[in-house]
Amino acid sequence: MEHLDDQERQEVWSTIEDALLNDHIDQFRAEFLELHPYDQARIFEGLDVDVRMQIYTYLSPEEVADVMEHIDYEEIEPFFTEMDPRFAAQVFAEMSTDDAVDILNELEKDKVASFLTIMDDEAAQEIKDLLHYEEKTAGSIMTTEFVVVKATMSIRQAMVHLRTEAPDAETIYYTYVIDEDKKLVGVISLRDLIISEEDWMIADVMNERVVSVSVGEDQEEVARMVRDYDFLALPVVDFQDHLLGIITVDDIMDVMEEEASDDYSKLAAISDVDSPDENAFASAKKRLPWLVILLFLGSLTASLIGRFESTLDVVPILAVFIPLIAGMAGNTGTQALAVAVRGIATGEIDKQGKTKMMFREAGTGLITGVSCGVIITFVVYFWQGNFFLGALVGLSILMTLIVATLAGSLVPLIMHRFNIDPAVASGPFITTINDIISILIYFGMATAFMNLLI
Amino acid sequence: MEHLDDQERQEVWSTIEDALLNDHIDQFRAEFLELHPYDQARIFEGLDVDVRMQIYTYLSPEEVADVMEHIDYEEIEPFFTEMDPRFAAQVFAEMSTDDAVDILNELEKDKVASFLTIMDDEAAQEIKDLLHYEEKTAGSIMTTEFVVVKATMSIRQAMVHLRTEAPDAETIYYTYVIDEDKKLVGVISLRDLIISEEDWMIADVMNERVVSVSVGEDQEEVARMVRDYDFLALPVVDFQDHLLGIITVDDIMDVMEEEASDDYSKLAAISDVDSPDENAFASAKKRLPWLVILLFLGSLTASLIGRFESTLDVVPILAVFIPLIAGMAGNTGTQALAVAVRGIATGEIDKQGKTKMMFREAGTGLITGVSCGVIITFVVYFWQGNFFLGALVGLSILMTLIVATLAGSLVPLIMHRFNIDPAVASGPFITTINDIISILIYFGMATAFMNLLI
Repeated sequence: MEHLDDQERQEVWSTIEDALLNDHIDQFRAEFLELHPYDQARIFEGLDVDVRMQIYTYLSPEEVADVMEHIDYEEIEPFFTEMDPRFAAQVFAEMSTDDAVDILNELEKDKVASFLTIMDDEAAQEIKDLLHYEEKTAGSIMTTEFVVVKATMSIRQAMVHLRTEAPDAETIYYTYVIDEDKKLVGVISLRDLIISEEDWMIADVMNERVVSVSVGEDQEEVARMVRDYDFLALPVVDFQDHLLGIITVDDIMDVMEEEASDDYSKLAAISDVDSPDENAFASAKKRLPWLVILLFLGSLTASLIGRFESTLDVVPILAVFIPLIAGMAGNTGTQALAVAVRGIATGEIDKQGKTKMMFREAGTGLITGVSCGVIITFVVYFWQGNFFLGALVGLSILMTLIVATLAGSLVPLIMHRFNIDPAVASGPFITTINDIISILIYFGMATAFMNLLI
Repeated sequence: MEHLDDQERQEVWSTIEDALLNDHIDQFRAEFLELHPYDQARIFEGLDVDVRMQIYTYLSPEEVADVMEHIDYEEIEPFFTEMDPRFAAQVFAEMSTDDAVDILNELEKDKVASFLTIMDDEAAQEIKDLLHYEEKTAGSIMTTEFVVVKATMSIRQAMVHLRTEAPDAETIYYTYVIDEDKKLVGVISLRDLIISEEDWMIADVMNERVVSVSVGEDQEEVARMVRDYDFLALPVVDFQDHLLGIITVDDIMDVMEEEASDDYSKLAAISDVDSPDENAFASAKKRLPWLVILLFLGSLTASLIGRFESTLDVVPILAVFIPLIAGMAGNTGTQALAVAVRGIATGEIDKQGKTKMMFREAGTGLITGVSCGVIITFVVYFWQGNFFLGALVGLSILMTLIVATLAGSLVPLIMHRFNIDPAVASGPFITTINDIISILIYFGMATAFMNLLI
């Protein structure tokens, strides 16, 4: 079977719908539960409220929990509002704690409090504990449904324990080993468990070099580790090495997607490129704040050119090359910015050293500047028949490209130094800064050599 | 244990180095093999060639294969060149076939042929089969080390089979079920295997709704499925549903990283932002081609302004607002482009419908255009004391934002329609197109209403 496309989902749905309409609970359950929760969620979110209400009575809280885990959390609020609050609380209790916490973070504070009050104490406490962790840290994405064994157990005992825990655990493919103080001392994969003899001891088989992350670690760093080490899960510990939770690879993929889309959005100067825009107002709301800031920065550039009005009065042809020069400054700056932002994100820049990088960028600016400068000098010369004008534009491009390339890499490095996410220095911002620099260079030189141009 | 940072790697290395210098093979092996292959690779790539040659004699081909799988494939060529060719061939034979193929794809064609000749026939054939698949398809990232069972086996038989296969399999957490024609008919997770009774039949426990991908499927689509369905591995089939290979989640993470960095690079108009630039020449080589193209496009913009030279002669103040208007067109175009490219990548746009999207973008352009237009009209009026100039700039911004927003989303949609990767329409290209549009609008209006401006 291929995964369901929209049409197949429609077909599956019409058979399920028949079952619902005719109150054939068993048939509905058989058909619906056969689907992967991801497809269940796609069908579910397309339904009318009265059909959804019917489904809440046909499915158990655990089955509804599976569906909810696959709904976009930003659009999940109405579903939990329409459910009976007691049912909703049970649904939360049945979810993986990390997913429950992610969803609760999207709901209103007092609604969250009321769910937690109805929920049984143990489940509520686990969720409360996780709600405390700061966003985008290891603690905020970990789950507490992991399997632990003692080093003194035999493989046979461990397997029995594992089989009991399997239905509730987020993953059973790694079992973590703790000592009497609940400190993490080892890990054993299910692969190693099943190829070991049943009477061996866990202590003899476990891997003592267990890689873990601290609960406050940045989620991007956690994702990088999981990717580098090809882990399926990673344990999260506090400063005393107590095992607090685990982060599984499916959550890591969501983090990677989130971080990539975040960087991409910022390069394009738009908040949150990925959540679908329902209408023009929602869409304008995300873009307008950036545009207005850029509008004022652009006015600054305009006022700067205004200061050279007397030069423009004498040599109006200068205006023709403004967008070319400003544009090239923006382009090279964006390139340098992208390299620096990615270099910081992958840790490559810390390895190479910042000074080395600045020298390299200066060199890159020089090479690209000389190349583009020479080309444009001849283009302008042949087009306008004025060698001095060509040389002026060419020299401006040369100097602009060097300075703009340096600016493009220096700004994110400085922001990184002051612990500001360098991706915030979005493309358009660097472009506007470089607009200003390039215009100062161009008109500065034009004013100085004006007598050659007339 | 935390993962190793550079300093810890240095410390670990110095103890390992002592063992090497004193020819203590056993001590070297004990210390080195204790490390995760990722860390082994980080240490290995920092060594001098004579130390590496020593290591090839101390480690088995299988152990070297583990190290090689964690080296950046673009920098791996010298290592395989310096090894004894017979040893290198054995290393390739011991690797996961997908990694071997990825690395061989980086080497010269005749070198690859010579390795394949030395290798034993079975391993060579498996690799040759995979080398045929087109880049960035499911076939090119799958591996052939998977575990299969027959539906007629008992759980006990399957577990015995699994234990035998475990050392070589890429993952044992999913076992695939095939019929007599080797067609994929089901899947069973190790979780389900270990909680089942030993005398049950595979046919009764397996999941018949096994999700698979076709061998020619785009790797980005494969990654999306693994992420949506939270799979640890996905089977790859041909058109007759024969099981050809599996794709594991660790490879999916690499695909996600590659695709994200690809989109990001293109938005910044730079080829391959992620491989570290060693020097200014390497760096300039990646950026210069784009810059030269953009230089010529910029000259086009310049020649366009040149056509309005007579207007500029009469009203030179017009030049002041060129970068502002062109800049705003570029900014809004980049925003619209980013939304469209991501929307196409996530499949969101196909779901919403393209017409709906174009109407939404037109609406967004109208809202942002009116807002920015009104603001700038007053800014220019108060600054220059000329209401008509303000109105001209404001009206140009309004029209520019509508057209540029539409262009930013229309261009990637058209490219998508013609099966061109829309991400190729990089930020700077859209910016240059929008520069031209905005200048036509601005100077067109200025020329038409010139008598109001003097």
